[in-house]
Amino acid sequence: MNKNRLTRILRNLQRGDISVDDATDKLTHFVDEDISFATIDHHRSLRKGFPEVIFGEGKTSDQIIGILNKMIPQEEVVLATRVDTEKARCILSAIPMCRYDEEARMIIWAPHTPEPTGHGTVLVLSAGTSDIPVAREALLTAQYMGNRVQAVFDVGVAGIHRLLSQRDALERATVIIVVAGMEGALPSVVAGMVNTPVIAVPTSIGYGVSLGGKTALYGMLSSCSSNIAVVNIDNGFGAGYMASSINHISISAS
Amino acid sequence: MNKNRLTRILRNLQRGDISVDDATDKLTHFVDEDISFATIDHHRSLRKGFPEVIFGEGKTSDQIIGILNKMIPQEEVVLATRVDTEKARCILSAIPMCRYDEEARMIIWAPHTPEPTGHGTVLVLSAGTSDIPVAREALLTAQYMGNRVQAVFDVGVAGIHRLLSQRDALERATVIIVVAGMEGALPSVVAGMVNTPVIAVPTSIGYGVSLGGKTALYGMLSSCSSNIAVVNIDNGFGAGYMASSINHISISAS
Amino acid sequence: MNKNRLTRILRNLQRGDISVDDATDKLTHFVDEDISFATIDHHRSLRKGFPEVIFGEGKTSDQIIGILNKMIPQEEVVLATRVDTEKARCILSAIPMCRYDEEARMIIWAPHTPEPTGHGTVLVLSAGTSDIPVAREALLTAQYMGNRVQAVFDVGVAGIHRLLSQRDALERATVIIVVAGMEGALPSVVAGMVNTPVIAVPTSIGYGVSLGGKTALYGMLSSCSSNIAVVNIDNGFGAGYMASSINHISISAS
Amino acid sequence: MNKNRLTRILRNLQRGDISVDDATDKLTHFVDEDISFATIDHHRSLRKGFPEVIFGEGKTSDQIIGILNKMIPQEEVVLATRVDTEKARCILSAIPMCRYDEEARMIIWAPHTPEPTGHGTVLVLSAGTSDIPVAREALLTAQYMGNRVQAVFDVGVAGIHRLLSQRDALERATVIIVVAGMEGALPSVVAGMVNTPVIAVPTSIGYGVSLGGKTALYGMLSSCSSNIAVVNIDNGFGAGYMASSINHISISAS
Amino acid sequence: MNKNRLTRILRNLQRGDISVDDATDKLTHFVDEDISFATIDHHRSLRKGFPEVIFGEGKTSDQIIGILNKMIPQEEVVLATRVDTEKARCILSAIPMCRYDEEARMIIWAPHTPEPTGHGTVLVLSAGTSDIPVAREALLTAQYMGNRVQAVFDVGVAGIHRLLSQRDALERATVIIVVAGMEGALPSVVAGMVNTPVIAVPTSIGYGVSLGGKTALYGMLSSCSSNIAVVNIDNGFGAGYMASSINHISISAS
Amino acid sequence: MNKNRLTRILRNLQRGDISVDDATDKLTHFVDEDISFATIDHHRSLRKGFPEVIFGEGKTSDQIIGILNKMIPQEEVVLATRVDTEKARCILSAIPMCRYDEEARMIIWAPHTPEPTGHGTVLVLSAGTSDIPVAREALLTAQYMGNRVQAVFDVGVAGIHRLLSQRDALERATVIIVVAGMEGALPSVVAGMVNTPVIAVPTSIGYGVSLGGKTALYGMLSSCSSNIAVVNIDNGFGAGYMASSINHISISAS
Amino acid sequence: MNKNRLTRILRNLQRGDISVDDATDKLTHFVDEDISFATIDHHRSLRKGFPEVIFGEGKTSDQIIGILNKMIPQEEVVLATRVDTEKARCILSAIPMCRYDEEARMIIWAPHTPEPTGHGTVLVLSAGTSDIPVAREALLTAQYMGNRVQAVFDVGVAGIHRLLSQRDALERATVIIVVAGMEGALPSVVAGMVNTPVIAVPTSIGYGVSLGGKTALYGMLSSCSSNIAVVNIDNGFGAGYMASSINHISISAS
Amino acid sequence: MNKNRLTRILRNLQRGDISVDDATDKLTHFVDEDISFATIDHHRSLRKGFPEVIFGEGKTSDQIIGILNKMIPQEEVVLATRVDTEKARCILSAIPMCRYDEEARMIIWAPHTPEPTGHGTVLVLSAGTSDIPVAREALLTAQYMGNRVQAVFDVGVAGIHRLLSQRDALERATVIIVVAGMEGALPSVVAGMVNTPVIAVPTSIGYGVSLGGKTALYGMLSSCSSNIAVVNIDNGFGAGYMASSINHISISAS
Repeated sequence: MNKNRLTRILRNLQRGDISVDDATDKLTHFVDEDISFATIDHHRSLRKGFPEVIFGEGKTSDQIIGILNKMIPQEEVVLATRVDTEKARCILSAIPMCRYDEEARMIIWAPHTPEPTGHGTVLVLSAGTSDIPVAREALLTAQYMGNRVQAVFDVGVAGIHRLLSQRDALERATVIIVVAGMEGALPSVVAGMVNTPVIAVPTSIGYGVSLGGKTALYGMLSSCSSNIAVVNIDNGFGAGYMASSINHISISAS
Repeated sequence: MNKNRLTRILRNLQRGDISVDDATDKLTHFVDEDISFATIDHHRSLRKGFPEVIFGEGKTSDQIIGILNKMIPQEEVVLATRVDTEKARCILSAIPMCRYDEEARMIIWAPHTPEPTGHGTVLVLSAGTSDIPVAREALLTAQYMGNRVQAVFDVGVAGIHRLLSQRDALERATVIIVVAGMEGALPSVVAGMVNTPVIAVPTSIGYGVSLGGKTALYGMLSSCSSNIAVVNIDNGFGAGYMASSINHISISAS
Repeated sequence: MNKNRLTRILRNLQRGDISVDDATDKLTHFVDEDISFATIDHHRSLRKGFPEVIFGEGKTSDQIIGILNKMIPQEEVVLATRVDTEKARCILSAIPMCRYDEEARMIIWAPHTPEPTGHGTVLVLSAGTSDIPVAREALLTAQYMGNRVQAVFDVGVAGIHRLLSQRDALERATVIIVVAGMEGALPSVVAGMVNTPVIAVPTSIGYGVSLGGKTALYGMLSSCSSNIAVVNIDNGFGAGYMASSINHISISAS
Repeated sequence: MNKNRLTRILRNLQRGDISVDDATDKLTHFVDEDISFATIDHHRSLRKGFPEVIFGEGKTSDQIIGILNKMIPQEEVVLATRVDTEKARCILSAIPMCRYDEEARMIIWAPHTPEPTGHGTVLVLSAGTSDIPVAREALLTAQYMGNRVQAVFDVGVAGIHRLLSQRDALERATVIIVVAGMEGALPSVVAGMVNTPVIAVPTSIGYGVSLGGKTALYGMLSSCSSNIAVVNIDNGFGAGYMASSINHISISAS
Repeated sequence: MNKNRLTRILRNLQRGDISVDDATDKLTHFVDEDISFATIDHHRSLRKGFPEVIFGEGKTSDQIIGILNKMIPQEEVVLATRVDTEKARCILSAIPMCRYDEEARMIIWAPHTPEPTGHGTVLVLSAGTSDIPVAREALLTAQYMGNRVQAVFDVGVAGIHRLLSQRDALERATVIIVVAGMEGALPSVVAGMVNTPVIAVPTSIGYGVSLGGKTALYGMLSSCSSNIAVVNIDNGFGAGYMASSINHISISAS
Repeated sequence: MNKNRLTRILRNLQRGDISVDDATDKLTHFVDEDISFATIDHHRSLRKGFPEVIFGEGKTSDQIIGILNKMIPQEEVVLATRVDTEKARCILSAIPMCRYDEEARMIIWAPHTPEPTGHGTVLVLSAGTSDIPVAREALLTAQYMGNRVQAVFDVGVAGIHRLLSQRDALERATVIIVVAGMEGALPSVVAGMVNTPVIAVPTSIGYGVSLGGKTALYGMLSSCSSNIAVVNIDNGFGAGYMASSINHISISAS
Repeated sequence: MNKNRLTRILRNLQRGDISVDDATDKLTHFVDEDISFATIDHHRSLRKGFPEVIFGEGKTSDQIIGILNKMIPQEEVVLATRVDTEKARCILSAIPMCRYDEEARMIIWAPHTPEPTGHGTVLVLSAGTSDIPVAREALLTAQYMGNRVQAVFDVGVAGIHRLLSQRDALERATVIIVVAGMEGALPSVVAGMVNTPVIAVPTSIGYGVSLGGKTALYGMLSSCSSNIAVVNIDNGFGAGYMASSINHISISAS
Repeated sequence: MNKNRLTRILRNLQRGDISVDDATDKLTHFVDEDISFATIDHHRSLRKGFPEVIFGEGKTSDQIIGILNKMIPQEEVVLATRVDTEKARCILSAIPMCRYDEEARMIIWAPHTPEPTGHGTVLVLSAGTSDIPVAREALLTAQYMGNRVQAVFDVGVAGIHRLLSQRDALERATVIIVVAGMEGALPSVVAGMVNTPVIAVPTSIGYGVSLGGKTALYGMLSSCSSNIAVVNIDNGFGAGYMASSINHISISAS
């Protein structure tokens, strides 16, 4: 479209319908628009099939329904995160095509589950049972962004043998997401066992000097293993998104 | 070796040279060793050609020389990070085969630069000139771990056009490392322009409420872009290592 | 009144009705009162047409109604900030001449919208949709303090092209207010594009290490651009007030 | 120059020397360059006569000399901040045209003091004698950016009468910079006395819970006066820059 | 009583009724009791007429009633602080002899207001209207501990003239309590005007970087005036108690 | 002087040399000056014999000598705090009339030790041997402000019996200063044993989570005893000053 | 069982039923299982009679009932901590064999109180009445883990004589748990009186700079006594568990 | 001695040499002394053979020599911690009977190594090589307090197999000290493998958000294992002392 417009201006100039000054003027205004156009288009093509997400916390169910109704006609997958059971009920009764994953506290709209398009499997590990909501948010995000996914929950460091017995799963994975609260020690141990990129997700689980997840966060950033990078506290969505982005890296020829 | 030993025990049992009780006993002690063996072996094979690193800060040049002398015979690449000019002089006079990159404050021992083995290019961006040491530490780490690398320094957000003019480099990269201090805003802008995984590295550059890099760190973790994960403040080595780990992910057939 | 009293004392002295000692004594006590008088008068003349503001948070609707009723007869504009929908309903039914701006959560009493008296336009930019209440509080404050205002919302740094397409508005403004939560990167980018004074307003939008707005605040204070100054978290009113104060600076002859 | 190039392309098309496709291609590549060009040009014109600044802390005198030598041919004013006496001596012996203000710890290169171009006077107040270096950095920055300046130092709140006796200076100023450490109470008191915009600068002066200036910073941000905005701790340069930017706002006709 | 028991043991020994060993044994056990006795007695005599206090926050009205019923028969004054209106209603209907001061959120049981026994007057100043509950808690505590009290509320530093007009009250006071939230600047200004001991009470009033009163607290501790000491955030009771303790210091002859 | 000027104006008016308008005008300008005059005079009379203090930290010995030379002719006592041994040597050789208290790190200039003018004795307690410099700074400050003083050092809570054996000293004191680092528990215990006002001084002694004195400070502010108020970390001077101010409270007749 | 399986494999090899390769393969897989087995078995035997615990906070009564029903058949003691009165009512009506300790906010299921198996007595001290819930949680945990226990509540440092009168109990104890909020000074004093290991438990009791228990925590960690170690804020369960672990240490022969 | 004095008084009374009043008076004064006596004696007997310790940091070698010379005649073991190499040289040349452990940075004076008197073995584990100084300080403290000790250094969680291979040592120990910096995850893993009491020691090793050891400290306090208690950052001495205190608990008969 925009390209058409550029061509049209140039044709008009070529044909002598407009002067060089007119063309200069039109093109000068065209620059900014063009940037927007280019960037949006570029984004859209890259994001094809990737979910748009609504951060549900602090929004009313009416607001979420409104946004969903605007997005659904234009997208292939829409996710709403941090939606509690009560809000979910309202949303589902308004938009019955959505489904609600209670554990992940997520509303999902997707006519069909996306085919896996990534290079390998995204493995999601979590330490304690209270970390499962965040872990499952990561899992579903990765899945709906076109990744084969696997989950191994409840493998905390206080019972290290449970983790050791999962060595096969660890070695088969292409990217590993590790979700942990309290002291947040699991990612260090996991990253020491493999050479795969590890996305660490601190959770706000804990009390006292757990500091609402900051202790886990700082521990993960201070890890003595090096194949680790970290996302914000409770940011399961971000971890799933980053893991998908890793699992879809471009493989250049040279 | 270890496998040989296992086979030997079993052969001895098979041949009747030892009893079942003897074999049980030997195997019981074998388990722990075996774990170590397995894990070490596993690690070693994965790490082939990957650099061992010495954290130079707080170590004397004598200590660094000692560790280098122990490692060099066993490794293909050895890096020592955070080595100042004076220490470097001592180390180079003791081990002349090493070379010193003053900007990155790194001692490098490598008989030959490793061949790129990763899937694509690791691009390192940095915001201010003071961020260059950390950026270059990331760059060299990635390079010596077998990655094609590219550097674009000094593209801070206060002059956004300099970043925009690098769009080609951004789009060609497979993984992007973004190094920034002060308000740490660059990774958000970069990650909004591409769909590639972005490793954000906060630096301790700044004063007052820059809080020695914590403001940049928190900003990066709070980013409104989602294809971002973060490493510890000034951790150029970790960023290079994580980027390499992403650039070498296993590509499964299915 | 007070001036009258001073004159009266001096006249009495002139007429010989009181002695120098008496006058000295009276004047000594007069000093303190005079200060209050002078300062209040001075303030009042400066503030003419400027809104008085009631901080609504933590006050009951009854308390707000009480204060409004005391202020309205004496002021030309009265604003009450941080008033939620429910309280607003009570207030409006008690004082129907007020109007309520739901987005800005503001109660406004003003017989007529003030004429713009400032030197130019106050532009209010905001990053995310959740930042709009604070942005609009700034906008209305500036407007009711006698400023021409313009709003451009939802121009976050993760989609930098949207900001670039607003270059005209940026360049036409005399003062710019930039409202942003999370990593708070927008003011740096904006201030790098213009030479206008920028008032940065961090918001408490975000979670985890957004730290209730402190990460945005610190980022703004650490900005690598220099034509920026910052107000407290969520302080839209203060930003509007400061912007108005800038837009009304005295232009001296020399 | 760039405009010439655009005209040339369009002329070539008009003349039939190139095809529409060629023109499209050239223009597409032209976009990015044009952005850089436009922004740089724009900046340069705005910044005319405004000082470039070198943050001297953490740089060696050799590094500062190097940067100065590169900048001096292209600029009208160059400032280097946070330069201690010893470094200054080295710099002055290398570049004798510079002068050194010891109190402000600033190196200044300027063939002639800039004429005041701002609308009025920038007044700099400071609380304690230890705050003077930061206050003077603000003062000189404002002066070399083309502002009439005035300084009133040592008017802390613990002797409120000293401040009160400066009421005339306060009322004559167009912008006021207030520099204070420890409890940072001065800006609140000053802003309560005038209606002028106040730029508050916290300093790192103090000990114990002064927290290196954070207590003053937080106090200024929490001020009960509203015509205040704040810059980073010890950021005298930024305050002078922001004050100048306010003192040079565009005065639109309408 | 205890002295009687000591005398009895010694008499028994003197009379030969018990042996030295028995006496030693009895006296050894006597030591601990004696300490308790001495200390309790000592305390009681010191505290005569001083109020016992119940910290009401986090206690149910039933719990408060229970404690009041136990204390009232033994004390001359009992105060319960931080009691909200609803709890107060329950308590008053159970113990009608109590009275409730709504502003101070205090339940007071005292058959008659204590006579002032201190050396002079305790003056309570407060900065903002929201600081009044804490200020009034301090006032009533001091009053019920036997002090002549005076209150001057709403004299914040943003309108310094209101404070200046209270110079007489300031100079007449023997101890001054200054209650302020937000930037907490008032105690510095007050302490600079007098030489009387000033007890500074930070309040949790404010938002953003007011940090729930910590900014005011740190500011007061960092004050550039020296006749200031500080109590915990919102601790009106403590301030009143400390002021009373100062107003009742022992005046030794020598 | 100033009074003379007031009288002169009034006389001129009385004599008819100036009009009422002239007098009004002169008096209006006179007000500000008068305030300064009054306040300074007032201060001076109150502070008679009270030491002026120079905060020596961060000042060179030359700077301290300069200030001392300016102050000595005008004051009866001058103190310089936080002066290390080396600086002290320089100062004493320049101004031999000064003496240096090495333990307190204080330079003292006083022709003769001031007579005690306070109501009773200021007792200074300290917990550990490392707290002695701060304790002694408090002691000397109080002494040179005209207070009878007593010191009991090294009575930490980990050996509670040493404190108990000082009960006599505790009970005889009119004001008690308690200096403690690490966990800062001593003031709570002391204040529980007496009814005297206790000034608590946290010190920066400790490591790890002692947080440079903040743990002691917070502990003291959170004390379960109520006759306590607190000064800034290591602020021995402030504690001595506040104690003196308490020990000199005005005793009103009524 | 597992040993049997190992023996079976080796026997099969010995008998020639399987080849060395088969045995190698089976043993390789056996390793991981063996680790798990060993660890689990080991744990179970150690934990015999020790309570399993459910952290009740943030769980619904239904969830707690579900977990209890799964655990009760397999355990000898099950505890659920941080259960409020309302949830407790639901749980007891569903599982009437449980009992609820309201003060400790604990649900206890145990067919019979465990016999004391530890070496001596665990003494639990607490400072204020508000600390009792945490203290009692520690007490019951220790008791149900097989320890003789004793409680002395309400012995805060502000009334040191109450503590001193408990010297006998202190000296008889084998391990002492000290629970305190606010300034958290009690453990220092207690540990200075005995040589027994002291487990310090900070509580979240307090306000202002008590920082939700962090001030008590830091104070305890900074204690000048050395026979102290600390657990997380409000972690009564952990303190009881650690104390039991100390009271059950293995006594080796040599 | 003191007991003798008590007996003497009582004998004098019994013999009629003094009156009951005289005895009462003498005994009243005796009480305080007795407390001191009792406590000191009690302490001394408990501490027999236990080292006295000098915290060497911030003390000059002269000061340490002075304290050592005072202590050596009265003690059986004296330790000085945190003594650097240079100070150690001075001390050893002054007091040649001392020895210096360079790794532990400890000066030790002990005529002969104490016999182990504890119930079992104290095992000291450490995570990284940089943690060894703190670990060795713990080890030597425990050893010189009469404990059999064992050290296993360099078993960090990033290579979990090294820890697993030490299972025997873990199970044989009576108390385990775990020393770790950075993320501080090791104690959680260790405590999950055994039922022995674990003393966790965070170290200040790390950078960025390691926060000088606070991240490790908070992680250890937030551990999901329960047989853990924690000491201050870098407090190797305290850990050794606490471990010894556990290893010497009294074993009561009943």
